[in-house]
Amino acid sequence: MQLFYTPDINPTHPQYFLNEEESKHAIRVMRLEKGDVVKLVDGRGGLYAASILDAHPKRTILQINSVIPEFNKRNHYLHIAIAPTKNIERTEWFLEKATEIGIDEVSLFICQRSERKEAKVERLNKIITSAIKQSIKAYHPILNEPVTFNQLLAKPFNGQKFIAHCDKGEKMSLKSGLSANGSYLILIGPEGDFTPAEINEALNNNFKAITLGESRLRTETAALEACFEVNFLNRLG
Amino acid sequence: MQLFYTPDINPTHPQYFLNEEESKHAIRVMRLEKGDVVKLVDGRGGLYAASILDAHPKRTILQINSVIPEFNKRNHYLHIAIAPTKNIERTEWFLEKATEIGIDEVSLFICQRSERKEAKVERLNKIITSAIKQSIKAYHPILNEPVTFNQLLAKPFNGQKFIAHCDKGEKMSLKSGLSANGSYLILIGPEGDFTPAEINEALNNNFKAITLGESRLRTETAALEACFEVNFLNRLG
Repeated sequence: MQLFYTPDINPTHPQYFLNEEESKHAIRVMRLEKGDVVKLVDGRGGLYAASILDAHPKRTILQINSVIPEFNKRNHYLHIAIAPTKNIERTEWFLEKATEIGIDEVSLFICQRSERKEAKVERLNKIITSAIKQSIKAYHPILNEPVTFNQLLAKPFNGQKFIAHCDKGEKMSLKSGLSANGSYLILIGPEGDFTPAEINEALNNNFKAITLGESRLRTETAALEACFEVNFLNRLG
Repeated sequence: MQLFYTPDINPTHPQYFLNEEESKHAIRVMRLEKGDVVKLVDGRGGLYAASILDAHPKRTILQINSVIPEFNKRNHYLHIAIAPTKNIERTEWFLEKATEIGIDEVSLFICQRSERKEAKVERLNKIITSAIKQSIKAYHPILNEPVTFNQLLAKPFNGQKFIAHCDKGEKMSLKSGLSANGSYLILIGPEGDFTPAEINEALNNNFKAITLGESRLRTETAALEACFEVNFLNRLG
């Protein structure tokens, strides 16, 4: 089943025109023909069933047959803020895997020990988009432009706030500290971890320190572990 | 702290000689000097503290100062059997991440819908070794040579046996079906999943069908999800 990401779709309009790139992919690569059925997601929860009305290789016309709103709507809101890894590929696979497992928003931040001071959001967002197509997600996770650690802390967030770090100090597990069906913001530090000053700054901003288990995890593994734990703890049955 | 993987170490011997490659790495690359402290793991649970007695660039001599047996011994035994992915890099990162999070044994198997019919265990094992060094694991996960699906089922296994598949049929979650502190064998199928015949074959061999949640996961993500869940369910606190 071919799935397209079509954020510009109008739910009230009975037809949709694939852009030139998607049309070429559908007709020339996938060899789809008139009458073939495809699916569309708008990234805001809408899953559309459509069929090809005109198999035009540059301007394919689709007939919208049905719409499912809030498809697989999640029972919680997960926002993970991660310091981009020195090797950006590690951040890329975190984004791919987190999208598959389930995440709503990702923020990138630069802190004192960040070896990488920038990240190309456009490229990273393409990885998220291909992951939602692969795993049939109707909601497209939000990816925010990099900010400094202090700018991140200054952002308002209505929900539980956690910081995962490897330094000393009292920590709770998500298993014991997470309230089900809530909104969560979890900070994951860079290679080399947060500085003690940054940890204090977060604690002073009502973040709770958490542990992700006894294993020493890489930045991107810790972020995925947090994503897994939050989804698992909110899973029914 | 420099850590070396030294499976041939003799716990009763007060000294250890790094091989030529490790000696070069220690002395020429890491610039370690006489008296510097390093750590060694034997892959069987032993964590050794040692200091450099002779900083020879080809035959470094270490003085063993102390040994911790069964370092971070796990409270369960996890054996995941996975059909190698078409793009072997995806299997490689599963091995790296599973080693970080915690796994004891990995089997590779080829089944009917496997697009990849072979896998180079020596290369894959190197990835596991570098992951145990990075995450300071004293136990080296076992990686078995690829076998056919039927050969895998024929292997004796003393513990709970699960098969994760996306086909219809009754399934349980690990949360509901897993007995804590046990031994587990979990089968993860290839892109395209197991065939119904293979699933029946497994069920007839006392494997229980499990679900890893509602998301459609790639082979390597499903394997990592299973690894996450087993470790999480066995984690104290």
